[in-house]
Amino acid sequence: MPEFSPGLEGVVAAETAVSEVDGANGRLIYRGGYLIEDLAAVGTFEETAYLLWHGELPNQEELAALRRQMAADRRLKDSTRGTLTSLDPTTDPMDALRTAVSAQGATRSITKPTLEEAIALVSVVPTIVAVSYRRAKGLELVEPRDDLGHAANLLWMMEGKEASPDRVHWLDSYLVLLADHGLNASTFTARVIASTGSDLTSCVVGAVGALKGPAHGGATFAARTMLDKIGTAANADSWLREAHAQHARFPGFGHRVYRTYDPRAKILKEMAKAAAPELHKSAEHTEEVALQILHEAHPERPNATNVDFWASVVLTGVGIPKELFTCVFATSRVAGWTAHVLESLADLRIIRPASVWKGPQPGTKPLPIASR
Amino acid sequence: MPEFSPGLEGVVAAETAVSEVDGANGRLIYRGGYLIEDLAAVGTFEETAYLLWHGELPNQEELAALRRQMAADRRLKDSTRGTLTSLDPTTDPMDALRTAVSAQGATRSITKPTLEEAIALVSVVPTIVAVSYRRAKGLELVEPRDDLGHAANLLWMMEGKEASPDRVHWLDSYLVLLADHGLNASTFTARVIASTGSDLTSCVVGAVGALKGPAHGGATFAARTMLDKIGTAANADSWLREAHAQHARFPGFGHRVYRTYDPRAKILKEMAKAAAPELHKSAEHTEEVALQILHEAHPERPNATNVDFWASVVLTGVGIPKELFTCVFATSRVAGWTAHVLESLADLRIIRPASVWKGPQPGTKPLPIASR
Repeated sequence: MPEFSPGLEGVVAAETAVSEVDGANGRLIYRGGYLIEDLAAVGTFEETAYLLWHGELPNQEELAALRRQMAADRRLKDSTRGTLTSLDPTTDPMDALRTAVSAQGATRSITKPTLEEAIALVSVVPTIVAVSYRRAKGLELVEPRDDLGHAANLLWMMEGKEASPDRVHWLDSYLVLLADHGLNASTFTARVIASTGSDLTSCVVGAVGALKGPAHGGATFAARTMLDKIGTAANADSWLREAHAQHARFPGFGHRVYRTYDPRAKILKEMAKAAAPELHKSAEHTEEVALQILHEAHPERPNATNVDFWASVVLTGVGIPKELFTCVFATSRVAGWTAHVLESLADLRIIRPASVWKGPQPGTKPLPIASR
Repeated sequence: MPEFSPGLEGVVAAETAVSEVDGANGRLIYRGGYLIEDLAAVGTFEETAYLLWHGELPNQEELAALRRQMAADRRLKDSTRGTLTSLDPTTDPMDALRTAVSAQGATRSITKPTLEEAIALVSVVPTIVAVSYRRAKGLELVEPRDDLGHAANLLWMMEGKEASPDRVHWLDSYLVLLADHGLNASTFTARVIASTGSDLTSCVVGAVGALKGPAHGGATFAARTMLDKIGTAANADSWLREAHAQHARFPGFGHRVYRTYDPRAKILKEMAKAAAPELHKSAEHTEEVALQILHEAHPERPNATNVDFWASVVLTGVGIPKELFTCVFATSRVAGWTAHVLESLADLRIIRPASVWKGPQPGTKPLPIASR
């Protein structure tokens, strides 16, 4: 029996061509061998999802066909609408998303995951997120628009008016950057569920639940909450040193895989200058101080900024309320989840690891009861 | 980088004191060191769940307190009732369960898993299963009864009349036997989701999705479907040889961990004699022929009967329609899922394995588009 590696750190759990986190060199490679910085400069979320599913970027015709399919798939089923209406409007938007995706993907009998289902699930997520947003505010729901792209539709359905091209572009770039990231915990969850022969909706619903955790998708919310607490740049030094003295972790710093600056954080940091100039300024100072404190405390660690930190600033600039940050993360990552599940079908083997027994051997304790 | 072990076979993913599958010796050990055969002989599902959560069997007072708590927790929230009513009555009961558990456990903001939540989730599963059953049949819903135990309540809510003590006993024993089983795929799913700091409902919802797969919880349904197709004992030999010639797998045979007869299958086989005498007879012959065929084809493999085969016979005797087999499995295993999540909180580290890149290196393909 090999040694136990907590968190499966360094344990290879899959072979994949969907994406590669090259932690040593600070590179994120998407399917087909595209570096994230090259793709983010020119691609849209729709093109990225197509790439992750097919292994090739779409030509104009293929892209138009995908956009048509996504427009048709944005509509909620009556059962999903009824489910969302049944939930209290104050429900955590991630719980509403988990429940509504489960309802939207419910079928009469189990189905093998297909590309069509992947497109349908990716398409409907922003609709669900927007419903949560508007119900919490007590506003009438806004139907999706077939003439708008994926990023534009999310803002349209949330706000009931067209967002500026800049805001759409920042959101779209965010969606491209976050769409996949190797065997992160939510993607791994999806692959474990898929390994039993279960359906795609079950995989995505499980992944939504995993993304919710503060050590995963919830970290963008936590980073923004930290920035809110710090308030102004002048306050960063004393706040961070006080938090560090109390052994608080700084959300948005450190990563299991990257030994260098997260390439997505680099792009988002640059984007944040235009998207949220004020917050960018205080965030930049916060980053500087946080890295300094971390380097002093742990000079042996890489201590780099990760994607969550600058994503929280860009999403703020886009105008997304922080309560929806994890949902918007899911809006992007569902492309990667579905691509991984579809890839895994080619060689499905149930993921069933071993464990080490820490309990007593049989016969140690008497059976105290005979309740019948 | 260590070698890739498909399905994480033999890879240790956790240390646990909840249960141990001793595959070499054909033993299943529950928390506290109890052998499954000893516990199944005297314990109820409620006692087993208590054991998995606490590490000790309850005394009479503790058991009474748990039963009171479970009675209170059996009721559906209005939001869950609304969710279930929104779903088409023909919805796969596992999809309804996944959606309704998600609704029942939805909260305003993320919560750390607690024992109280574990009790609540375990308690409500039979209520949801019974609603699916009665809606599919177009029958009025039946409220849970506080004076009945867990197994008896499921049958009561399904049928609207009290089941015989024998049927309750067989179901209860099944629930004891299936409550936990090391790092099976659904339990592992729950632990991966928990590792991100997510909530207990997200863990259980993900686990329900994993259990649904035919290589996991769905196998009991598949085993019964095979028995249905075989029909009579006289037909077993020709049917199985024909299926084997077409490379079909026999559901209910073989297991990742057991190298001997599954100890749960042994108990269920004995119980099936009384629970379903007719089906027991043809199943026993089917088992004999199937093992013979498998031994001829793969003399190097252990080729033992697993729990799914005899569980399908016992559940038939209990009077559960086969469409609900996986849901009844979930009714039991949710005790183990929640116990594993609660145990994992003591040393939470995000489960984020590595992967091997099978795609092209950057720069291999040109970026063909500039869509903006």
